[in-house]
Amino acid sequence: MRTVNAYAAPAATEPLIKTTIERRDVGPKDIMIDIAYAGICHSDIHTVRGEWGQIAYPQVVGHEIVGYVTEVGSEVTKHKVGDRVGVGCMVNSCGECEYCLRGDEQYCAEGNVGTYASVDSADGTVTQGGYSQAVVVTEDFVLRVPENLDFSKVAPLLCAGITTYSPLRHWGAGPGTKVAVVGMGGLGHMAVKIAHAMGTEVTVLSQTMSKEEDGRRLGADNYYATSDADTFTTLANSFDLIINTVSAKLDMGAYLGLLRVDGTLVNVGAPAEPLPVQVFSLIPFRRNFAGSAIGGIRETQEMLDFCAEHGIVPETELISADSINDAYERVLKSDVRYRFVIDAATFA
Amino acid sequence: MRTVNAYAAPAATEPLIKTTIERRDVGPKDIMIDIAYAGICHSDIHTVRGEWGQIAYPQVVGHEIVGYVTEVGSEVTKHKVGDRVGVGCMVNSCGECEYCLRGDEQYCAEGNVGTYASVDSADGTVTQGGYSQAVVVTEDFVLRVPENLDFSKVAPLLCAGITTYSPLRHWGAGPGTKVAVVGMGGLGHMAVKIAHAMGTEVTVLSQTMSKEEDGRRLGADNYYATSDADTFTTLANSFDLIINTVSAKLDMGAYLGLLRVDGTLVNVGAPAEPLPVQVFSLIPFRRNFAGSAIGGIRETQEMLDFCAEHGIVPETELISADSINDAYERVLKSDVRYRFVIDAATFA
Repeated sequence: MRTVNAYAAPAATEPLIKTTIERRDVGPKDIMIDIAYAGICHSDIHTVRGEWGQIAYPQVVGHEIVGYVTEVGSEVTKHKVGDRVGVGCMVNSCGECEYCLRGDEQYCAEGNVGTYASVDSADGTVTQGGYSQAVVVTEDFVLRVPENLDFSKVAPLLCAGITTYSPLRHWGAGPGTKVAVVGMGGLGHMAVKIAHAMGTEVTVLSQTMSKEEDGRRLGADNYYATSDADTFTTLANSFDLIINTVSAKLDMGAYLGLLRVDGTLVNVGAPAEPLPVQVFSLIPFRRNFAGSAIGGIRETQEMLDFCAEHGIVPETELISADSINDAYERVLKSDVRYRFVIDAATFA
Repeated sequence: MRTVNAYAAPAATEPLIKTTIERRDVGPKDIMIDIAYAGICHSDIHTVRGEWGQIAYPQVVGHEIVGYVTEVGSEVTKHKVGDRVGVGCMVNSCGECEYCLRGDEQYCAEGNVGTYASVDSADGTVTQGGYSQAVVVTEDFVLRVPENLDFSKVAPLLCAGITTYSPLRHWGAGPGTKVAVVGMGGLGHMAVKIAHAMGTEVTVLSQTMSKEEDGRRLGADNYYATSDADTFTTLANSFDLIINTVSAKLDMGAYLGLLRVDGTLVNVGAPAEPLPVQVFSLIPFRRNFAGSAIGGIRETQEMLDFCAEHGIVPETELISADSINDAYERVLKSDVRYRFVIDAATFA
């Protein structure tokens, strides 16, 4: 066991505080990672505040983690001491179901083990996330971080990056296709960068035009405000794929109407309320409304390598640990361009 | 012009009455069909009662039509006098858009010309449907009806058949897949027969077990009542494809929960109200909620040939024209197993 500093939520209604947690001894297949940077995801906030269900406290969150390997188990073959590595939203899965076997561990039939607030199949404890100095993870769930990616910015690829990369790949974004990205936040700005690098025509649909300059700089070919009703007539029947990163309750009929025949609108944002879907929006054009969750481990590595090849890192603001609570408030106000990353040196 | 007998709705609130309508002269590419049988589809009732929007009266409906070719235009090559032919839900489309060019005329970018209550691109009149003695249709929208299919039963294949065949094909029903059919009515019973013939494992989800014997006789491997809450736990995460033929507002979260990873629930029934969809039903298994409309002409011919090969015809009740209004009431009470067909000889 190793005691490390961390920032934990002591209760649903209290700010995060500095504390210590225990990390398990490194088993034969385990890797100890000294964390260098940890991203802040909106999911972290939902989780610690109990908005996605009750959890046990204290709880350390954070599932956008990069760092250096400091110790490897006796049977580890994939990584070695000193490697730059990353950990995303999962730290284990059954490994035996059809979905795991095909590389879709995120859809494990037994449920994957989340990086935080899950029961760890390794030792039965509740998993504790990346707002800490170190973490121990089985090697199969540790990613290689390519050397040319700015280590201080790369962490959000492990959630925001793969969450948008996976549906773009799954639904065939590429040259000759048109993709719309709804929302220009942590997920949305990654979707724009990645979709652009895939060679598709990218259109941002944002509430207002306030981030247009950013959107075009990141790779958007077109930028429209959804507050302007004309947007929905101008763009009717236009897109092969719409990636909806917004967690609010949108008028789905309006957005589905922007899809071409056989087009798909994929929600990666997860509104708590049900979304009313008018079936007459789907039938006449054989449209699809889908959801997608992160990506498998193999695909996450593919995404990291793709980002390295195309020089893609998130737009980030680096903060120290004592600013986490302020950062949470700013995330809730969408006052970040576009992702906070915590310098893990400040957990010391 | 040819004057023929027909049954028309004189107004949204009145029963259908016997009348006469004009059929246009046979143009170079046209085919005159003496109608032998016409199916009754629930859409006919929605249309004449103005439930899907205002229409002009009097209106003749019916888009499940079979009959004999009695006259062909000078340039017709696909059919000859005496042939057994059919006409479904469309009688024309632009023929030039990408969807028409790939054989998806039902999704024509200009909108296809419906067999009734549409503006006919041939002469600008409002199209009049199959509850009549004859119809004139451009040859590209006339199907060949294989000789071994019982002519008095085959008409509903032109709507109920293709509406279920097309999504079963599009989403890959076949050996090794599991398909659920929601609702055992006109569409549902065809979905069961066709899915069974495609070699998939077929499960019927009906409100009660009252039609279980029928369902199994038509090809269902399993039969469950949706009034039993256990059904939704027993069958969780089971199906590759669900064909929802029900037009009522179902609890979509419960049905989406029955899909495997990457599974699709396709609505072919069209409830007027929006359906509330919980995004958390879609994201964790990358599930899809889709709609599908009939099928293209080439695919409709493929469906007829498939049904001929497998000896599939709808379960029908043959009625005379003077029973149409009674039949409508029985359709609304689901009191038909499973489709009414009008003997067009009784239009005389």
